[in-house]
Amino acid sequence: MKPCLGITMGDPAGIGPEVIVKALARPGVRRLCRPLVIGSAEVLTETIRRLRAPIKLRRVQAADLPYSAGPIPVLDPLTHPLPDFVLGRISKETGEAQARYVKEAVLLAIDRLIAGMVTAPINKEAINLAGYPFPGHTEFLADLTGAKEAGMMIVGGRLRFMFTTTHVAMKDLASRLTIETVERAIRLCHQGLTQLFKIKRPQIAVAALNPHGGEGGLFGREEIEVIAPGIARAKELGYPAQGPFPADTLIGQAARGTYDAVVVMYHDQGLIPLKLAAFGKSVNITVGLPIIRTSVDHGTAYDIAGKGIADEGSLVEAVRLAAQFAVRRS
Amino acid sequence: MKPCLGITMGDPAGIGPEVIVKALARPGVRRLCRPLVIGSAEVLTETIRRLRAPIKLRRVQAADLPYSAGPIPVLDPLTHPLPDFVLGRISKETGEAQARYVKEAVLLAIDRLIAGMVTAPINKEAINLAGYPFPGHTEFLADLTGAKEAGMMIVGGRLRFMFTTTHVAMKDLASRLTIETVERAIRLCHQGLTQLFKIKRPQIAVAALNPHGGEGGLFGREEIEVIAPGIARAKELGYPAQGPFPADTLIGQAARGTYDAVVVMYHDQGLIPLKLAAFGKSVNITVGLPIIRTSVDHGTAYDIAGKGIADEGSLVEAVRLAAQFAVRRS
Repeated sequence: MKPCLGITMGDPAGIGPEVIVKALARPGVRRLCRPLVIGSAEVLTETIRRLRAPIKLRRVQAADLPYSAGPIPVLDPLTHPLPDFVLGRISKETGEAQARYVKEAVLLAIDRLIAGMVTAPINKEAINLAGYPFPGHTEFLADLTGAKEAGMMIVGGRLRFMFTTTHVAMKDLASRLTIETVERAIRLCHQGLTQLFKIKRPQIAVAALNPHGGEGGLFGREEIEVIAPGIARAKELGYPAQGPFPADTLIGQAARGTYDAVVVMYHDQGLIPLKLAAFGKSVNITVGLPIIRTSVDHGTAYDIAGKGIADEGSLVEAVRLAAQFAVRRS
Repeated sequence: MKPCLGITMGDPAGIGPEVIVKALARPGVRRLCRPLVIGSAEVLTETIRRLRAPIKLRRVQAADLPYSAGPIPVLDPLTHPLPDFVLGRISKETGEAQARYVKEAVLLAIDRLIAGMVTAPINKEAINLAGYPFPGHTEFLADLTGAKEAGMMIVGGRLRFMFTTTHVAMKDLASRLTIETVERAIRLCHQGLTQLFKIKRPQIAVAALNPHGGEGGLFGREEIEVIAPGIARAKELGYPAQGPFPADTLIGQAARGTYDAVVVMYHDQGLIPLKLAAFGKSVNITVGLPIIRTSVDHGTAYDIAGKGIADEGSLVEAVRLAAQFAVRRS
């Protein structure tokens, strides 16, 4: 049977409802999985009406799971209707709702009532207002599942990147890169490639931080003092990786298929090539959780919320990958 | 008449002679320009023999210029033959030779005996050994021509990048980015696009330094304190540019043609996408000199020197661009 995937609606004030409705209207998505939307049936119904999308919904409870055919089930964990909200506006109420969708999906995934979860974007400020002090999904999910370590992998086209750091100011990078964080990123990269992608002996390369990989210490010493020791320690623990290599050359090689994944040191080191090579089609994966979780590669996009022009490509890819992981796991 | 371009041989111990011979063997190159090689006729003759390349050389003096048809002229500024050297090895003698090739080309270009110069790679350590204390071509050329400001632009495919910094350790970046360096990079970018590419009203975008452009100061304040004021100052001086924009999204847009060029903050911010999108075909341009100068995008590649496997693609592109600039200037 096709895996049942929970799709969280994300921020009601963003493009989440729109990309979900558009993705569900694609026959390919329902061929891949049995989708369960976790969100507001009212918001989704209104979005379907606005987009004139050829899909039907039905409300369900967790107790109704698993389900098979018929209209697409929507599960709303809120006991009260979502109060009125303005598209493109942050509020405590929408923050509470989007956090609850994520919590519900995690519970269902842990109970194996869904095979995995796919998340539409949340708004950090909104969830913070509602009392969830997390910078994003990754940390929130680690907390909810009790995962000791979790890391962000983004894949698009032939590129797979594991991030050593994410939302860090460039001037603080050097202090955030440690032998431990590099070693952990390599381990998590292995874990993602072996457990999710089912690659037996993954070829992993580690990117340098500095131009030309520091050129022997001339333009920075992190390669020598931090990254190489991090690689050595990961290897000792049974997680081999090559590098550090100058990032510009390495990422070009990775795009041509030389490595299964690249461990990058900072956000833009991975995101610049991903947005160039796999624009609108890359997928965010959380590695290290006891559950399967994929996500779109974009934010709430308040500037285009409700305009009907959001692209569902990344969500479709996220569903495809989660379904693939679920099938391979079972 | 086709422009006469001086092609400097670069480091004799690197892949320069090989890529020059391979490029000159392509009929397209001689359709674009009248090439003059500035280097060692012995080294080039030996390279031709080894590669069995279908080209003939003749030795010339500066006084013989300009020239028209016949075998490809080689001008050797050294008064003594190049001493024996080992491929892939740094030496003071090869350093002296490669520096003299560059100096000669600059003199010829200033005297308008050549319309522009195209450079094969030099080795920084070798020229330093020979007493030329420059980190690379750009600074050396600025010194030789007396240019007050010179900047590196790299183009490949639809991407054009002007670099605010180049070979700087990431931990020193924040201190090297100033309102002045950002403003200067924008000005030089304008200069390159208008004077060389003949774009009348260039659309220039400036990349942010931090992930998500710092997200309003949350992940770094350089966008607010340095880059935006640099853009404002350039605009006051008559050089408008947009931004700063998050680099990942911006560079994807630039690749789709939204801007004529992007001013990037650091080496890999431009080189990662260039090596991904225009591998082996990008060209380095020095903007701000009183002469036309383009260059290959690669180094001396000691690891493959003499093996016959070096790719002449970037040199061919560099010749093509220099010829285009020369034709448009005249």
